[in-house]
Amino acid sequence: MADLDSVLGCLDLNLDRSVERLQDLLRIPSISTDPAYAADCRRCAEWLAGDLEAIGFQVRVADSAGHPMVIAHHDGAGPGAPHVLFYGHYDVQPVDPVSEWESDPFDPQVKAMPDGTRRITGRGSADDKGQLMTFVEAARAYIAETGSLPCRVTIFLEGEEESGSPSLLPFMDAHRDELTADVALVCDTNMWDRDTPAISAGLRGLVGEEVTIRCADKDLHSGYFGGAAANPIRILSRIVADLHDGDGRVTLPGFYDGVEELPADVRETWANLGFDDAAFLAQAGLSVPAGEKGRSVLEQTWSRPTAEANGITGGYTGKGFKTVIAAEASAKISFRLVFKQDPAKIRESFRQFVRERLPADATAEFHPHGGSPAIQLPFDSPWLGAAREALSAEWPKPAVMIGMGGSIPVVGEFKKRLGMESLLIGFGLGDDRIHSPNEKYELTSFAKGQRSWARVLDALGRKGR
Amino acid sequence: MADLDSVLGCLDLNLDRSVERLQDLLRIPSISTDPAYAADCRRCAEWLAGDLEAIGFQVRVADSAGHPMVIAHHDGAGPGAPHVLFYGHYDVQPVDPVSEWESDPFDPQVKAMPDGTRRITGRGSADDKGQLMTFVEAARAYIAETGSLPCRVTIFLEGEEESGSPSLLPFMDAHRDELTADVALVCDTNMWDRDTPAISAGLRGLVGEEVTIRCADKDLHSGYFGGAAANPIRILSRIVADLHDGDGRVTLPGFYDGVEELPADVRETWANLGFDDAAFLAQAGLSVPAGEKGRSVLEQTWSRPTAEANGITGGYTGKGFKTVIAAEASAKISFRLVFKQDPAKIRESFRQFVRERLPADATAEFHPHGGSPAIQLPFDSPWLGAAREALSAEWPKPAVMIGMGGSIPVVGEFKKRLGMESLLIGFGLGDDRIHSPNEKYELTSFAKGQRSWARVLDALGRKGR
Repeated sequence: MADLDSVLGCLDLNLDRSVERLQDLLRIPSISTDPAYAADCRRCAEWLAGDLEAIGFQVRVADSAGHPMVIAHHDGAGPGAPHVLFYGHYDVQPVDPVSEWESDPFDPQVKAMPDGTRRITGRGSADDKGQLMTFVEAARAYIAETGSLPCRVTIFLEGEEESGSPSLLPFMDAHRDELTADVALVCDTNMWDRDTPAISAGLRGLVGEEVTIRCADKDLHSGYFGGAAANPIRILSRIVADLHDGDGRVTLPGFYDGVEELPADVRETWANLGFDDAAFLAQAGLSVPAGEKGRSVLEQTWSRPTAEANGITGGYTGKGFKTVIAAEASAKISFRLVFKQDPAKIRESFRQFVRERLPADATAEFHPHGGSPAIQLPFDSPWLGAAREALSAEWPKPAVMIGMGGSIPVVGEFKKRLGMESLLIGFGLGDDRIHSPNEKYELTSFAKGQRSWARVLDALGRKGR
Repeated sequence: MADLDSVLGCLDLNLDRSVERLQDLLRIPSISTDPAYAADCRRCAEWLAGDLEAIGFQVRVADSAGHPMVIAHHDGAGPGAPHVLFYGHYDVQPVDPVSEWESDPFDPQVKAMPDGTRRITGRGSADDKGQLMTFVEAARAYIAETGSLPCRVTIFLEGEEESGSPSLLPFMDAHRDELTADVALVCDTNMWDRDTPAISAGLRGLVGEEVTIRCADKDLHSGYFGGAAANPIRILSRIVADLHDGDGRVTLPGFYDGVEELPADVRETWANLGFDDAAFLAQAGLSVPAGEKGRSVLEQTWSRPTAEANGITGGYTGKGFKTVIAAEASAKISFRLVFKQDPAKIRESFRQFVRERLPADATAEFHPHGGSPAIQLPFDSPWLGAAREALSAEWPKPAVMIGMGGSIPVVGEFKKRLGMESLLIGFGLGDDRIHSPNEKYELTSFAKGQRSWARVLDALGRKGR
């Protein structure tokens, strides 16, 4: 523990310098989705590579079909220590509407707030440059104080996370050996609250499916044909409506195969999180949980599968009115998956469900939009236990293991392609306004995040392989 | 009959000249929806006014808030004759895509076809310049041969029919006395087939309604909120789906109030029209009548009310996929009405139907888009009988009284505002491609249409007031 204490002391002593480094990084407008910023993305990758090299990593900026990847290796203290892969992304969201920013999104500031907190402002401060730098700073201090790292560490930073990661999977396949470690650390998530660190242990999977219903071979006049012609909007509406029963359960045959009830202890943990259903819904102007009857919001969003229509369109949707019977109508439907639900089976069950509801003269065309199973970290994973203890030592309240309603595709791919479990640990807060104007990262998140990673690396190193 | 015979002879003799006049009129690109053609619309109104004045009408081009109206009066042969109002429109649809036209849409040609028929090509040839000129030519010949007209005639031509007639109702209200006649003649419809003239005796009414369902106060991420947040697309789909039962009947309470079964003789007439359900549906690539079970296509489109979703939109509808739970979704719904269905009651019944299906946190906003009752000409109307005999004398087969699935708003307004019944008589054919590239009007339609109006004027004049 003497080593860890000196590393933590070093981090505290150098906090101002680490903030300056983060500000340097935030000044680079690495907006991945806009080709006008391609050179900035590369500059950002090179900045990170240079910094990691200065710390003592073996680094390269690896070209991909899109923006480059940064891969850095450090052998760590010895062969008995585990190998961890740290994943983050250096690209950021666009900043529109710029007029809503209180200060320049690419001129980061440290602002003192009336309540005594301080925050680092700027695009990418929380998502994900501030978060990834918590790990880099921990590694820097570790090497500075001890000459090495307690684990073998590979750092893998991509530059396309905010634009769909088109190059990630081919790159992962082409560099499987280089990227495979004993466990992955992913720093792109939030704390439970200001005082309580969180490890996301379950991530819902996702099946995306677009369905287009076609009837007539052209749009028809509803006066001339109305009453005689099949209407694809009606057919599609019936399909969407039929997807749920009166209790909010999904009606696809076999949909709940592999869906388990929560273990009693997890249910109790969640019940004790003090989660406020009403406050959560109120964020969106809502008041009543709209999912499966008799389930809490946390169950509905963390441990229960869903079916949602994310988009629907058909016929005339402009201003005014047009009495047309459309030739086609389409919907984008997504299924959030949990536990062992099989994405392929669910996609096929949906298609069959649609086909069974097609009247004469109607056809359905399907277009898949991704499919990934849920991730569920074993509750008895030793990595999980070690990380939990380390985080609990740093923060006012013990770490909680939570579920996540969303899907982080890279976590599924780490599991599927590289056979690695992931620990999702992040220090963001719910009000960081990622993807929105006035994104910020709390100085506490940044400082205690660095200390947290030092503790986690220490704990994982002591765990051995 | 001597007078009529000479009028018909005069029409035959002057057919070439009448075609040239129509071509002159067709050369004016009076596209009402595009402000770039405003001067052409006025030029077109003035051309018609000049022609009618030359014939012997008292004419004025009357300004409106939009394109001008043409109003022309002729006192006719004497005070005992009825007063008829002839309605047509001089504006035309846009011509896009121009590249699909076989010849310039505003350089009309007379083309001889391989089957021996001849057609007049060009935008507006059938809709509605060719049709309205059949009446003008009949009037010209009548006055030339007899010195007068057998009825008192008011001709009323608008220039905004293809762009929603925004100025029509205020103009009608402001000129009620000038426009009110004993009966209106509307020439904007089709023959039953090449050999069989038709008088439309029933026109379905229309209620248009736009409904927007709102839940959350912003778009939500379906990972974070999915399962807990109300989804307006689901709610709207349920509403649209619930509008019909399994037999295709509309489920709105009170919807069928005032809907009558067809009288046996009308049903028999329709059954004997030789209408080919399969051929009708095949035009649109369909094969099975999709409306109320156990009804023919003619019943479904002429004498039965319908509910249709003409447009639906919500959530993400662009390329790819976005896992959003939309804040709102909306649909444009129309109801075609028959017999004595009350538009106001049906609109209110729909709104109540929607409100009853709103779960917690969902609201509905309604926006009306027009409402007009159905028009049903009394089957024993003397005008109808006279017109029917006149048309039957001209064409190879007797005139049929048909229904019409669509709504011609002006007919409803003539009834509501001016207390006039309308006779809908037109000489278009189903393949005239109105609103599409390569619009045409058969020379037979034009020539026999002129003769038909001469006969109808003669018959109405002899009927007396």
